[in-house]
Amino acid sequence: MTRLVLCAGTSRTAEIDGISAAGATTDLMVHTPSADAEILTYGRPVRAPVVPVSPSGCPTPAAVTRAVAAELGVETTVVDAGLAEPTGAPTVTVGARPGDDIREPDPVPSAPGAFAAARQFGRSLPDDEIFLAETVPGGTTTALGVLTALGEADVLGDRTVSSSLPENPLSLKREVVAAGLSASSLSPGAAADEPQVALRRMGDPALAVVAGLAAGALETDTAVTLAGGTQLVAAAACLRHDGYEGPLSLATTAFIDADPTVDLDRAAGDLDLDVTVTDPGFSDDHPGMAAYNAGEAKEGVGMGGALALADRAELPMETVRSRFRTVYDRLLDAAPEQAVPEQ
Amino acid sequence: MTRLVLCAGTSRTAEIDGISAAGATTDLMVHTPSADAEILTYGRPVRAPVVPVSPSGCPTPAAVTRAVAAELGVETTVVDAGLAEPTGAPTVTVGARPGDDIREPDPVPSAPGAFAAARQFGRSLPDDEIFLAETVPGGTTTALGVLTALGEADVLGDRTVSSSLPENPLSLKREVVAAGLSASSLSPGAAADEPQVALRRMGDPALAVVAGLAAGALETDTAVTLAGGTQLVAAAACLRHDGYEGPLSLATTAFIDADPTVDLDRAAGDLDLDVTVTDPGFSDDHPGMAAYNAGEAKEGVGMGGALALADRAELPMETVRSRFRTVYDRLLDAAPEQAVPEQ
Repeated sequence: MTRLVLCAGTSRTAEIDGISAAGATTDLMVHTPSADAEILTYGRPVRAPVVPVSPSGCPTPAAVTRAVAAELGVETTVVDAGLAEPTGAPTVTVGARPGDDIREPDPVPSAPGAFAAARQFGRSLPDDEIFLAETVPGGTTTALGVLTALGEADVLGDRTVSSSLPENPLSLKREVVAAGLSASSLSPGAAADEPQVALRRMGDPALAVVAGLAAGALETDTAVTLAGGTQLVAAAACLRHDGYEGPLSLATTAFIDADPTVDLDRAAGDLDLDVTVTDPGFSDDHPGMAAYNAGEAKEGVGMGGALALADRAELPMETVRSRFRTVYDRLLDAAPEQAVPEQ
Repeated sequence: MTRLVLCAGTSRTAEIDGISAAGATTDLMVHTPSADAEILTYGRPVRAPVVPVSPSGCPTPAAVTRAVAAELGVETTVVDAGLAEPTGAPTVTVGARPGDDIREPDPVPSAPGAFAAARQFGRSLPDDEIFLAETVPGGTTTALGVLTALGEADVLGDRTVSSSLPENPLSLKREVVAAGLSASSLSPGAAADEPQVALRRMGDPALAVVAGLAAGALETDTAVTLAGGTQLVAAAACLRHDGYEGPLSLATTAFIDADPTVDLDRAAGDLDLDVTVTDPGFSDDHPGMAAYNAGEAKEGVGMGGALALADRAELPMETVRSRFRTVYDRLLDAAPEQAVPEQ
């Protein structure tokens, strides 16, 4: 059996102006992981007061993952990987707490404990195969932080990490990472072979939980697919720096593959990843799909993994798009006042 | 769509010697709701260190509910209704805390808040229909406490409430309820029309959450089936005393119907309940089934509701029994040292 496990958490790094598009406004972004968890579980927000959309109205990739998981009957499980707001989705507790801005000296003190509890949970899962996904606004910046601390900042090419924004604010991310390293008295590569140090000092709680879950599942011979973009590449780097030398798969979207700031081939080579890229064939005549085609969101909440599962099950992408349209319409109905953000 | 919602909680009332069989020993019983949640979700315990069995080795009814839910693809959601031990099952949080022994003056101070949060959650659920289930050791005693406080102690006949033990320790339960009323300075019927007082002073957190969920779901025209035995009758009494006058269904097992201490017809009449009784046709040649035929466990974790769903879907009871055997065998494999308790 296949289970998709969503690690939903927060990092105050997302509050830095201009760093993330995972919410209509910075104030609303803190609700995004809680709402994503609900959309994955129920098909729409239940308790969370928002529908996660970007400033331009691009819907959360949770809509795609939900559409596929419901259609294929894939079991989904949400882990509270540091949520800061309540969610109506059932969550597994591993002791993760909301992460602070990585420019603080010890932004994720719960990382080691959450990594250990997630590892134990990963060991105990009864599944043959798990897909690991994340939702954490600001997560590409913390991923860059972790990769830099591990000495792998160039693993995705000389520009590295993707963005939920069409124009990747890379210089801002680099500034934030540099300030974070300074606050933690770390130099690039100082946490090589010490992924838990990198996660605690430069990461976020969701990445710590993804890495712990993967480590535990792999120890018990559960097949693991890292379902996501550059944040999951950072999780792969953590596993390699933790000493894991076995096979490792990453499933992501065509939007990440098309991102000129990301060199997936290089990541695949350097980290020995088996990379699957799936294109949902989005058309520009649908506002939600057009936003993805314009480079927004790109990935998240396991979207690339869900598309890979659809492809493997020979579910036509036309059906995926049709189900996505249905979920999208339901999301707009759920909170019309939030679908078109104010700004 | 139909969702089965399991409200999993604890009450220290279960620690009273001889009051419950929902665990191999009193010390292990506190883990039973956490393990039941895992069995419903994953088919076997994941984090909980026990397989819930009675002192004689009768398996938890969670095994039956899991067997049916997995076969029919029924969505299941677990609400943390006052768990005292960690669970690896994802849970929804409504602010419920473990309940104290009802002989204490204020055993469930979290009941009003949990009722309100559960009501709000029940209002927001996207389903057409929900089945509400409980797992709370000692729950028939707290149910008797609530019924007595509401002035409905005779609603199930002059002996009232069932038991997970073949020999119902009714006189002990009555002593405990009398002591509880005294500690809370209540007389029988003193909390009529005030179910939240009854739940807080004489109940348990799981019953408070069941009642709140039902109230909220009914407000938004979600069909509600109370899936269980006399504890769910107590939930029905709470709803009637809360002023709800619409239709209300209860689905329970043939083992409850056969219990000479329970008069289901009377409860159906007094509380205007549409009662469905389903017989899984257990045979004595299987140790798990024979225990049920001998009057153990009888109901719990939504077993009667699951059987009703199987019947409605025209799933043959032979298939239900076969799937139950598979889950039962997996449970024994999971923790052979606990399958035959030491006592």
